[in-house]
Amino acid sequence: MTTTVRCETTTLADEEMQRLRELAAQLRVDSVRASTAAGSGHPSSSLSAADLMAVLMARHLRYDWDNPDSPLNDHLIFSKGHASPLLYSMFKAAGVISDEELMNGYRRFGNWLQGHPTPALPWVDVATGSLGQGLPIAVGVALAAQCLDQLPLHLWVLCGDSEMAEGSMWEAIDKAGYYRLRNLTAIVDVNRLGQRGPTELEWDMDAYRRRFEAFDWHAVVIDGHDLHAIDEAYRQVRGIDRPTAILARTIKGKGLPQVENEASWHGKALPPDLAEKAVAELGGVRNLRVRGPLPEPGTPAGAATAGGQVTLPTYKKGDKVATRKAFGDALVALGARTDVVVLDAEVGNSTHTLDFAEKYPDRFFQMFIAEQQMVAAAVGLQVRGYRPWAATFAAFFTRAHDFIRMAAVSQADIYLAGSHVGVEIGPDGPSQMGLEDISMMRAILGSTVLYPSDAVSCAALVTQMVDREGVNYIRTTRGSYPVLYDNGESFPVGGSKQVRGSDSDDVALLGAGVTLHNCLAAADLLADAGIRARVLDLYSVKPIDREAVREAARATGGRVIVVEDHYPEGGLGEAVLSALSEQAVPVTHLAVRTLPASGNPDELLKAAGIDAIAIAETARSVAGR
Amino acid sequence: MTTTVRCETTTLADEEMQRLRELAAQLRVDSVRASTAAGSGHPSSSLSAADLMAVLMARHLRYDWDNPDSPLNDHLIFSKGHASPLLYSMFKAAGVISDEELMNGYRRFGNWLQGHPTPALPWVDVATGSLGQGLPIAVGVALAAQCLDQLPLHLWVLCGDSEMAEGSMWEAIDKAGYYRLRNLTAIVDVNRLGQRGPTELEWDMDAYRRRFEAFDWHAVVIDGHDLHAIDEAYRQVRGIDRPTAILARTIKGKGLPQVENEASWHGKALPPDLAEKAVAELGGVRNLRVRGPLPEPGTPAGAATAGGQVTLPTYKKGDKVATRKAFGDALVALGARTDVVVLDAEVGNSTHTLDFAEKYPDRFFQMFIAEQQMVAAAVGLQVRGYRPWAATFAAFFTRAHDFIRMAAVSQADIYLAGSHVGVEIGPDGPSQMGLEDISMMRAILGSTVLYPSDAVSCAALVTQMVDREGVNYIRTTRGSYPVLYDNGESFPVGGSKQVRGSDSDDVALLGAGVTLHNCLAAADLLADAGIRARVLDLYSVKPIDREAVREAARATGGRVIVVEDHYPEGGLGEAVLSALSEQAVPVTHLAVRTLPASGNPDELLKAAGIDAIAIAETARSVAGR
Repeated sequence: MTTTVRCETTTLADEEMQRLRELAAQLRVDSVRASTAAGSGHPSSSLSAADLMAVLMARHLRYDWDNPDSPLNDHLIFSKGHASPLLYSMFKAAGVISDEELMNGYRRFGNWLQGHPTPALPWVDVATGSLGQGLPIAVGVALAAQCLDQLPLHLWVLCGDSEMAEGSMWEAIDKAGYYRLRNLTAIVDVNRLGQRGPTELEWDMDAYRRRFEAFDWHAVVIDGHDLHAIDEAYRQVRGIDRPTAILARTIKGKGLPQVENEASWHGKALPPDLAEKAVAELGGVRNLRVRGPLPEPGTPAGAATAGGQVTLPTYKKGDKVATRKAFGDALVALGARTDVVVLDAEVGNSTHTLDFAEKYPDRFFQMFIAEQQMVAAAVGLQVRGYRPWAATFAAFFTRAHDFIRMAAVSQADIYLAGSHVGVEIGPDGPSQMGLEDISMMRAILGSTVLYPSDAVSCAALVTQMVDREGVNYIRTTRGSYPVLYDNGESFPVGGSKQVRGSDSDDVALLGAGVTLHNCLAAADLLADAGIRARVLDLYSVKPIDREAVREAARATGGRVIVVEDHYPEGGLGEAVLSALSEQAVPVTHLAVRTLPASGNPDELLKAAGIDAIAIAETARSVAGR
Repeated sequence: MTTTVRCETTTLADEEMQRLRELAAQLRVDSVRASTAAGSGHPSSSLSAADLMAVLMARHLRYDWDNPDSPLNDHLIFSKGHASPLLYSMFKAAGVISDEELMNGYRRFGNWLQGHPTPALPWVDVATGSLGQGLPIAVGVALAAQCLDQLPLHLWVLCGDSEMAEGSMWEAIDKAGYYRLRNLTAIVDVNRLGQRGPTELEWDMDAYRRRFEAFDWHAVVIDGHDLHAIDEAYRQVRGIDRPTAILARTIKGKGLPQVENEASWHGKALPPDLAEKAVAELGGVRNLRVRGPLPEPGTPAGAATAGGQVTLPTYKKGDKVATRKAFGDALVALGARTDVVVLDAEVGNSTHTLDFAEKYPDRFFQMFIAEQQMVAAAVGLQVRGYRPWAATFAAFFTRAHDFIRMAAVSQADIYLAGSHVGVEIGPDGPSQMGLEDISMMRAILGSTVLYPSDAVSCAALVTQMVDREGVNYIRTTRGSYPVLYDNGESFPVGGSKQVRGSDSDDVALLGAGVTLHNCLAAADLLADAGIRARVLDLYSVKPIDREAVREAARATGGRVIVVEDHYPEGGLGEAVLSALSEQAVPVTHLAVRTLPASGNPDELLKAAGIDAIAIAETARSVAGR
């Protein structure tokens, strides 16, 4: 059974209806014109949602267009980012971009009106275009607004129907239901057609409704071209104690008879002659300027600013402490800052984020086993000024790779911690071993990748990370290893530590994390054989300490060995090779090169050829002895 | 409202009940003993499902334990792979491993009874342990069995309740409903407790039921410790025209009063004294040998063997053809082999998999926009001997990274094609640009990574890929570029082509895909300036043609420039650096180093510094002129 909002008695005056009709027509006309001028884009996917967006921007979106950074504004996220012609047409209607810019800027090199929205535009919170991401990110924004800032603002998310096939959407729908995010409305533009034909559910509106309701949402089905029904649906959402899905049955290409409901028109700009005809049919170019209500006054209850004194945890040199534990300690210390929030994917007792949860439960959000949603929520929380940390096993961040990639496009500032790395974890076996995480994180544009070997450096790096921009990643180790450094030592990002060495070293051993400890043990073995080893702690994998690496190569006559508990591609070894790329230095690279299995850490490090004995043997060979 | 199967009149004779009770007790006892002997593992998560698995293996799983490779067998997949003690205890009960091996092998180095199941064991189809993967993979197996092989076998998937938070599970549930996989049963072990505390839904069985039903499954709620109810639920599933979810309310640690329903016992082996007491309470060690029914006789209707003559498409040298188009052509050619199947994530008109769909609709499966499910289905299809190809935009394979990673642990043979790579795609902007895919795919253990520059080499590589083992990836380009090679030329995986050069070259330009064309154009510019450039087509990124790269370095006196339309980390450049790591050769590396935006391809290649002019300028500088 389908519940449809029917407006038996209209609440919109004729004049207002006329304004909305005109606005919707303008959004259609401009969507067609902009994409035709660009020669590419998605007019048909814009036209299906034009009525939905016209009513929203004119009557329900509480937004101060002159002050897009105001924390009081509603948020509008186009999860279906390919409908950018519609979004940018709304910006023209709001008067924040000109018609000329829309016509000459869309999809053009050097202009901010890109093919898919990015926060290069001040009215855009996050980059979309990889489908299935806008709603999960909105859940993070909604959590911040409802649970931390406690403001009456509302989240409006325009979703495509095709993207409802992405599991990430159901992670978001699940979490929004779980947290009863009453400030969140998903507007699903059910236009029946995906890129290459009909969607899975086509116009089975009742199926959509049952699915949302099963995840504890309020769901309402409307005709997405009935301005009254749209208005009434929007009007109701603020009074509902749960998230609302407005399931709008729409027609792709609505308004253009030759395009309407035609599968072949996905993602195609109209040719100029057809576009001209279409614009004429839609009543020609308009230059309406429409703004809706301003946000309610208020003050965020959350304090998304750095406040509070952070006191680093301290450790005793030689004590065995796991870096994952030190990470938890440092996170608790960071908790003194009220902008720090923490997200877990149901492994907080392993990653030690639960240490934070115990002390700061209000700034801790459990995402259960939903890594995509965890990272998306982090991106959403930083939209509202928080410093979100998200932690899971390093291997399981691969689940959220696309979200991390897109976070970089959003130029989001997020903080990720991956534990249980490499074969070092032992008996659990390869499914739980992070062996490609450095590669994944290094290849994120503008990222920082840190991999401390001991508790002191780990805590120091966590404290620095929180003030950095972009995607920041710290890799922590499962097992406990000796504290190497004195409390208070400095570990600048981009630096390194020479933990062993002299002015006349025979060979350089470069490691990080567990392999640094193995390098140190190898250096002891080598010393017994009269070979002097320089040992370098490359705790900063990206940016890497290029100078120290080069100096180690120079000082040892080019006898460099790099050792990592990671697959050989894209990890510490290749970072070192890149640092030395313009030098003529041979590098010997020890890494995990066969499929690991279960065993104890020593057995597995030995089998991978990255234990102290393997390192020492390699060094002897490199040193020619 | 909860539907509960109630067995008012028992259909199980007392004797059979006694056998099942004994078997369940044995599985419990052995799960405790094995994990205690190993000193780690998940006994509590095994005990909750012991009754479910006892009834399944004794009465419903149609499986020839002496012939695990039989295509007629039912499949049993532990999506909750951490319950491996239970699975291995079942293997003991079936008589395929000994009690001694279970006690001394579990989680031990060199033994196949790893912490999480892998197909090193002949009774295991795929590796699990990254939660949320077993059910999506099972959908692929079920598609093969139902739609291709058309056999009456059944898929039984033991799922955890915690993993129901993974979006990938809902992608699987959605697709199983869409394809009406009546041969698929998900047994959800709702034991209420996750790793660090209660699950989202705890024992809200009705919520689970509503969710499955909303996705068009048959769902039934049972007491997961009531042997009659379990038996009756299993008995019914084969008669239902849809996938069935058996939602079993269970108690974690069931059978051990001190462990039952206690959050603190997740993932912990019992200490030996407690284990001894527990075993005694459960009635002591048993050595029951229990096997259930054998599979029905039959013959697979699908022919998962290489048959049919593949005739490569041909192209005219100099014609402009996109490699994504050549990929589609080659896939159609491969279609002559009846083991070739193709999966799409709703972009088949862009990746050109729809060309295959038109000719071979029965071997084409639309997964809609669900990249995790697409890759999981590929893994499932290869379980039954097919050669599955899955294609989407290269950037969107990041969505499935964890599934690709686990495919390597499964030692699965799958074939992935990523289109729309690099800034070359132009106006759509960075959300659609594959700029980290080479890095991701290189770091998959045992992977093959290919990146052809023209149509002839692309088709030749596709044809070779299909007979390779492991995870195979081909990267195709959006735009059309000249055909460079003669039809019939050979492009061995691991090889390269010198497309320009002599015995006395001044500089070596190494490229692949679009940058190879830019290298060729740069070589023309350099020739005008009297600089002789050798140009190498590194179409095989992994394995790379180490010898050719080294020879190019040697021949040019170490003046090597590598150019890629990809971020600098983990891609072609670092592959070249690794190939040269033990030589002392400087390498100049041109790659995409800033966030791209929209524009036309030429503008974006220029802005990234990887167009012909930038390459030529760099070469002049490297050559010192």
